[in-house]
Amino acid sequence: MRQITLDEVVSLLKENDDFLILTHRYPDGDTLGSSYALCHILRKMGKKANVLIDGNLPKLMSYLADDYEELSFEPSYIISVDVAAPALLGENMTQYKDKINLCIDHHGSNTMDAENIYVDANAAAASEIIFEILELCDINIDKDIACALYTGISTDTGCFCYSNTTERTHIYAAKLMSHCDWKKINRKNFQTKTRSKLKMERMVYDTMEFYAGGKCSIIYITQSMIKMLNAGDDEMEGLASIPSQVEGVLMGITMREKPDGIFKISVRTNEGINASDFCKQFGGGGHPGAAGCTIKGDLASVKYRLIKACEETL
Amino acid sequence: MRQITLDEVVSLLKENDDFLILTHRYPDGDTLGSSYALCHILRKMGKKANVLIDGNLPKLMSYLADDYEELSFEPSYIISVDVAAPALLGENMTQYKDKINLCIDHHGSNTMDAENIYVDANAAAASEIIFEILELCDINIDKDIACALYTGISTDTGCFCYSNTTERTHIYAAKLMSHCDWKKINRKNFQTKTRSKLKMERMVYDTMEFYAGGKCSIIYITQSMIKMLNAGDDEMEGLASIPSQVEGVLMGITMREKPDGIFKISVRTNEGINASDFCKQFGGGGHPGAAGCTIKGDLASVKYRLIKACEETL
Repeated sequence: MRQITLDEVVSLLKENDDFLILTHRYPDGDTLGSSYALCHILRKMGKKANVLIDGNLPKLMSYLADDYEELSFEPSYIISVDVAAPALLGENMTQYKDKINLCIDHHGSNTMDAENIYVDANAAAASEIIFEILELCDINIDKDIACALYTGISTDTGCFCYSNTTERTHIYAAKLMSHCDWKKINRKNFQTKTRSKLKMERMVYDTMEFYAGGKCSIIYITQSMIKMLNAGDDEMEGLASIPSQVEGVLMGITMREKPDGIFKISVRTNEGINASDFCKQFGGGGHPGAAGCTIKGDLASVKYRLIKACEETL
Repeated sequence: MRQITLDEVVSLLKENDDFLILTHRYPDGDTLGSSYALCHILRKMGKKANVLIDGNLPKLMSYLADDYEELSFEPSYIISVDVAAPALLGENMTQYKDKINLCIDHHGSNTMDAENIYVDANAAAASEIIFEILELCDINIDKDIACALYTGISTDTGCFCYSNTTERTHIYAAKLMSHCDWKKINRKNFQTKTRSKLKMERMVYDTMEFYAGGKCSIIYITQSMIKMLNAGDDEMEGLASIPSQVEGVLMGITMREKPDGIFKISVRTNEGINASDFCKQFGGGGHPGAAGCTIKGDLASVKYRLIKACEETL
């Protein structure tokens, strides 16, 4: 395992062939955008490359594979992109877990076990790193690459709104815009809600409660709610950001019951409250502003434990 | 009345003094951001300048006046910024209506009657034009100017999401970021909802109905709803974009009852459906994608007329 430079990454891409690109579980716009973009770049370099996804491509993101066709070959060089830890690889990737040749990521907490590692924690998205690889490789940008990279950069920054956005995020976006239909991408990812998503949001709003003098807001999604609306992962997208967006809230907590009855907890914080520290007491972790953990128990008791811990923190 | 170049705008600013800057009614982030930025620039040039606002500064935007103090002088050079038509000036600006020396705007439809006019319809925000003036004037950017310009550019583009965003929008944002607390601005304008706004949204979602096979979505806000929530203009902000954001909807209609019982109708369309043409049949108008009109009548009959017209259009 060695930390390498971006120039060395480019050399490795040029020297090798028959690439397999691994994405993280519950794939989002950035792991998919960066992986498809890298795949298109490698193919433009005359290489064979495929992208491996856990499960199906999310419906919302299906446009990313419009000009992608799986090639048939035995992979000999394994790259993970936007995967922060081995546990985040999909079940269909287990066989490659100990054979990763190159890890490209932007999570400062990266714990991947790979032959070569390139982590740029200042990049707002893994797609920013792939954009830099594209420029270093001297490959002409095309519609497919631009569409994938714009998708990754815009979704990981909440359309240039989140605090991870930087000057280079805007500059790369400016360079990508003329090469892809970014208006359509924005409309799809930020300006459209399905009717079932809308129903889920309304139901979740009805569960919202406030504690600690309005500084803590908590919402929940139970299995019976999920079943009632026949909701999938697409309907769950973005719910965790709802409670922390309410004025005056410093800690927003989202409880989501998994099919096995365990609650997946997402915590978002404002004004320097440390979400990761909060989640650590329940065996979880994450970023200072966004973290998670899992807690076993029924709705009322799990909620009680969270509220109590929250009131102690605030 | 003459169309002038940006260089000529800069010359006029350098040659004159005692400026009064006029903003448009129902002031938004761009008319305020561009005006305060221009005012700060002029003061840095050693000139006297004030900003005139219709009514009070919206609470959400009050931070723009943090380092602004009204000066006492008799204005001799009147500038309107981001004002598309004379009727959009506030009532407290009537005396200046026929005395405007310079109009700076980004609305292609501009009909202002001013001595000198500079309209750049490709600018996503009037604040982009003021940024260009800043660069031409060779004034050092400071926190106040950057904060005002970032506010104008980001709010008029929905945080770089709307289709009016361009490459230069991103490039100017990149240049402004290091000079202001853009994270706080984004959080204030895009990531915070008051609890009363949240309640209003939930109530409005409950009124949502679909017609024309799901291509038309309609919501309403009545005076009794407004009274029940004690809602002001801040709670109404952004409601008109809700119905058109639902998947499959081509025409989203928002009906808002005014205190006099007349309904103010806002229409937002997708995929080339012309909202302005639709509103013209009710004596209104606007942009192809966003238009409005007013209709007198009770809720049920006004809604019926709108739905019928919508079904004929789609």
